[in-house]
Amino acid sequence: MELWFTEKQTPELGITCKVKDVLHTEKSQYQQIAVLDTYQFGRLLALDGIIQTTICDEFVYHEMIAHVPLFTHPNPKRVLVIGGGDGGAIREVLKHKSVEAAYLAEIDGRVVEVSKQYLPEISCALDDPRCHVEIGDGIKFVQEHKGEFDVIIVDSTDPIGPAVGLFHQEFYRSLYDALSDNGLFVAQTESPFYNAGLISDIYRSISEVFPITRLYLAHVPTYPGGMWSFTIGSKSYDPIDVRIDVKGMDMCYYTPELHKAAFVLPEFVKNIIKGGL
Amino acid sequence: MELWFTEKQTPELGITCKVKDVLHTEKSQYQQIAVLDTYQFGRLLALDGIIQTTICDEFVYHEMIAHVPLFTHPNPKRVLVIGGGDGGAIREVLKHKSVEAAYLAEIDGRVVEVSKQYLPEISCALDDPRCHVEIGDGIKFVQEHKGEFDVIIVDSTDPIGPAVGLFHQEFYRSLYDALSDNGLFVAQTESPFYNAGLISDIYRSISEVFPITRLYLAHVPTYPGGMWSFTIGSKSYDPIDVRIDVKGMDMCYYTPELHKAAFVLPEFVKNIIKGGL
Repeated sequence: MELWFTEKQTPELGITCKVKDVLHTEKSQYQQIAVLDTYQFGRLLALDGIIQTTICDEFVYHEMIAHVPLFTHPNPKRVLVIGGGDGGAIREVLKHKSVEAAYLAEIDGRVVEVSKQYLPEISCALDDPRCHVEIGDGIKFVQEHKGEFDVIIVDSTDPIGPAVGLFHQEFYRSLYDALSDNGLFVAQTESPFYNAGLISDIYRSISEVFPITRLYLAHVPTYPGGMWSFTIGSKSYDPIDVRIDVKGMDMCYYTPELHKAAFVLPEFVKNIIKGGL
Repeated sequence: MELWFTEKQTPELGITCKVKDVLHTEKSQYQQIAVLDTYQFGRLLALDGIIQTTICDEFVYHEMIAHVPLFTHPNPKRVLVIGGGDGGAIREVLKHKSVEAAYLAEIDGRVVEVSKQYLPEISCALDDPRCHVEIGDGIKFVQEHKGEFDVIIVDSTDPIGPAVGLFHQEFYRSLYDALSDNGLFVAQTESPFYNAGLISDIYRSISEVFPITRLYLAHVPTYPGGMWSFTIGSKSYDPIDVRIDVKGMDMCYYTPELHKAAFVLPEFVKNIIKGGL
């Protein structure tokens, strides 16, 4: 028997991959959690049927969501990750020696537990003494912490189900308040090929709250279209004007030159942003 | 009835899209040719079941395979496209006013005819008076034309079937001979995620023939992994050290800044190249 897992990336488009083994499935309080072992990508985590991360390509997303904002801040000490229960973003955050405390606010404790059990390469830093895991609503967590974080990373699922509130301007205002004086945040902001309207709205919303807004791109093969966007809102540091020293840090995707190149956008992506302003 | 077209991008991975209409299928002398109308991408051309181009995302590939080499040469007058029977590369080539003659050497005349019939937005420039379509073996065509072209674009299918010979060093030597004194060529060179060994071999092969070898990337959502590579072999002009004027040219992906950013490679892609040297 051949087993194939198909994710509908849009109603008319799918990615399908051959499955070696279904390692885990459960229905948590919030979503359906599955870990599959696939031939192409190794083990992958899917939430409500959507691929979140895979052993083979997770380095792209996790390096790019973490190092771009952390290297934009000259001395990030306190960092918050919202979502990201697999621990991949936290793992990259903790590669920065300046970081004294990294908080993970994940709504679904089962994602953390399942990732610890089946994806140790990704979740390995969750037991680091500098890491503090808070199971609960990220929106509430942000509202209860004012001026506390140098960098906030919104590592959310797609804007359906539990993550909807993480794509609203009200939430960006809470992030502004939760950041320290010169703080900045980044959010994953979906695919320019398939979510242009959403990106346009998000960019405008953030730029109404933060003085500096910047969008950058990375190649994530398991996400729709393979082109993924991230948007930064920053109080004072500009992510395209930074000095970066990666000495002693082990990375597979991120480089100082790529940090800057990732902000150079194709014409149609520039137009998506302009469309929102 | 729901009709879905699935391309196996690797033996363990597929892209699948919902089909509105099967507009054309035939078995030519060289391959199976199909034009499907899909909900996600509009009309698409598939050869032997592999997506070659779609109405929705063709601009990325065609702009990037044409404008990067053409803007690297300060005054490209004679250009050759090998493969590319859909006409998309030629359309972009002819946006350059310096170009006096653009030759298309396509082995399969039926691809040209089918593209003219079903993909007029892509094939529209094939009837331009500056365009000369030569149906025949690109390898032979190159061998019969010495020192004639300022830029050669190898817009081939994957290295199986009729295109195998286009990925050999012997062919790169013929390209060298077919180029004018300061000429350069570009070839599409597959996915860094899924064809690392091939890219490594190609890069080494080209760098043994040409003094300047450079690899660049673009986001093509309908190609495996969404990250596509192109490799340039150049006799004297360096593609990362160019002055670009796009005034009056209509583009959706390419920009002068993106031309340079496309050569800034993720760490793992740098390592693929190093592995071959």
